[in-house]
Amino acid sequence: MCAPTVMDAVAARMTRRGFLGLLGAAALAGTVARAEKRVAVKGFTKVQDLTHPLSPNFPMWPGFDPIRITPLVTVEQNGFYGNRVDFWEHSGTHMDAPAHFDADGPTAEQLPVERLFAPLAVIHIAERAAKDPDAQLTPDDILAWERRYDRLPAGAFVAMYSGWEQHASNAVRYRNMDASGTMHFPGFHPDAAAMLIEEREITGIGVDTLSLDFGASTDFKTHLTVLPAGKYGLENLAHLGELPPAGATIIVGAPKHQGASGGPVRAFAVWD
Amino acid sequence: MCAPTVMDAVAARMTRRGFLGLLGAAALAGTVARAEKRVAVKGFTKVQDLTHPLSPNFPMWPGFDPIRITPLVTVEQNGFYGNRVDFWEHSGTHMDAPAHFDADGPTAEQLPVERLFAPLAVIHIAERAAKDPDAQLTPDDILAWERRYDRLPAGAFVAMYSGWEQHASNAVRYRNMDASGTMHFPGFHPDAAAMLIEEREITGIGVDTLSLDFGASTDFKTHLTVLPAGKYGLENLAHLGELPPAGATIIVGAPKHQGASGGPVRAFAVWD
Ligand SMILES: [Zn+2]
Ligand SMILES: [Zn+2]
Repeated sequence: MCAPTVMDAVAARMTRRGFLGLLGAAALAGTVARAEKRVAVKGFTKVQDLTHPLSPNFPMWPGFDPIRITPLVTVEQNGFYGNRVDFWEHSGTHMDAPAHFDADGPTAEQLPVERLFAPLAVIHIAERAAKDPDAQLTPDDILAWERRYDRLPAGAFVAMYSGWEQHASNAVRYRNMDASGTMHFPGFHPDAAAMLIEEREITGIGVDTLSLDFGASTDFKTHLTVLPAGKYGLENLAHLGELPPAGATIIVGAPKHQGASGGPVRAFAVWD
Repeated sequence: MCAPTVMDAVAARMTRRGFLGLLGAAALAGTVARAEKRVAVKGFTKVQDLTHPLSPNFPMWPGFDPIRITPLVTVEQNGFYGNRVDFWEHSGTHMDAPAHFDADGPTAEQLPVERLFAPLAVIHIAERAAKDPDAQLTPDDILAWERRYDRLPAGAFVAMYSGWEQHASNAVRYRNMDASGTMHFPGFHPDAAAMLIEEREITGIGVDTLSLDFGASTDFKTHLTVLPAGKYGLENLAHLGELPPAGATIIVGAPKHQGASGGPVRAFAVWD
C-alpha cells in the first residue's frame, strides 16, 4: 500500500472524478485512514460547542429548502425511535469543501483527518458590524490581530466574529435582504482571503454568518480564493465570541458521506 | 439565566417532549452551551479516524433504505457544487442517543458537550469472533482488560473490537443473515452492559458491527440496558484495532439536528 503522504500527493494531482473513478471513494478513505495522522494539540480542560442546533427554522440561503426530519418509528408504536433526515448540504453550521467551488478539489470526506484539528484564531469585527451590516474583515484586521497575538500560526483556522449569530433565531434578520433582493451581513473581504492564501499558511476560514463572502457579494470572490486553493470554509459558526482570540484549537467533525461538497459539521473549540 | 448544571438537572427530570414543548430545543441548546464545559484531555500528537465513509453501499439494518445523495447543482452547470442528502439516522458510523430506546431520554443534540470527549477503552475479542460470529463481549472480557490496564476510568467510553469491520465492504457478509433471517455478528453481552451501567461509571459503549447487541439478539437487552440509563452508543466504528487499548480519548462529532434519535457521527481517537 502507498504511504498516506504519497496517496495525498496523488489525490492532489488527479481530478476528483478521475480519482474516484479509479479507486472508489471507500478505497481512498480506507487507505488514507489506515495509519494514524500526526497533529500537535496541547492538553485542554475547556470545550465550547461552535455548532448551532439544526432545525427547519434555521436560516437558509435563498432558494434552498430547509432540513426535513421525518419520524419513521417511535418508542410508543415500535419500541424504538428514529427519523429519516433530508437536507441541502449547506444547512446550519456546515463545511464548504474545496469541491464546492472547484470541480478538481477534494470533497469533504477526502480531507486528511489532521486538517480537522487546527490552531484557532478569532478576529473580532463585531463593533464595526453592529453599525454596518456590510462590514468586511480586511487585511488590516488580520494585521491588528497579529500585532496583539503574534503571527498567525502555521495551519491556522481563521474565524471572523461579527456578532451576527445573535440574529440566527430570526431568518429575516439573519439574511437581512433589501427590497432589491441583496442580502446584507458581514464576511471576509476578498483581499483578506488573498492575504491568508498567499502570505500565510492556513487550513481554512470560518464565519458566524451565512457566507464566507459578505451578503452583498455578487462575485463570491472570497469563496473563489479560498476553496480552489484547497482550503475549507465553515459557515454559521456559533459562540465564537466566547473563546480566547488566540490559543484555542478547533476540532471539526466533518461530514464523511461520499462526494460531499460540504455538509453539517459538529465543531468544537478546546483550550486551557 | 439558569446555570448549566441547573438546566441539566431540570432536563433530566422532565420528559423530552414536555421539556421541548416548554422551552424549545434551540433555547435549551443555546442555554446549555453558553458557558464552556470542563473536560480533562491530555495533549496529543496522534489521530485516528473512527468513521467509515458513508455511501449507498454501506451495509444497512434490514428494512431501512440506504443514504441517497442527489446533486442539485454542479460547478460545470451552476458554478458551484452541492447535494441534497437523505438518510435513515442509523446509517454508517452513527450514534444511538438515549432517546432511540427511551421516550424520556435525551436526543443526540441535547447531550452535554463534555460527554462527547471520553477516555477510550478498547476491548479485543477478535480472536474469538474469528471462530464464532455469535461471540459476545462478556464481564470476563472487561475484567481481563482491567487486570492489564487498571480499572476503567470514570466516564470511559468502552468499545468492542471484534475485527468485524473487515466485512464492512460487503453487506451480505457484514449482516451475515442465515436462512431463517437471523443475523450473526458480535456484540456486547447484556451482562457486560449491566456490569458497566451498575458497577462502573461510563459515558457510552461502541462496536465495530451493526448493533450494540449481537446479531442474533431478539430482545435488544444491551440497547435496553445502556440507552435508558442515559448513556449513548456508537455503531459501525472503524479502525478500533489500530488504537492503544488504553490511554486514548474519543472525540465524538455528534449530530446536532433537532430531535435526533442518533445519526451519522464523525468520531476520532487521539492519543500520545
Ligand atoms: Zn456553504
Ligand atoms: Zn443505531
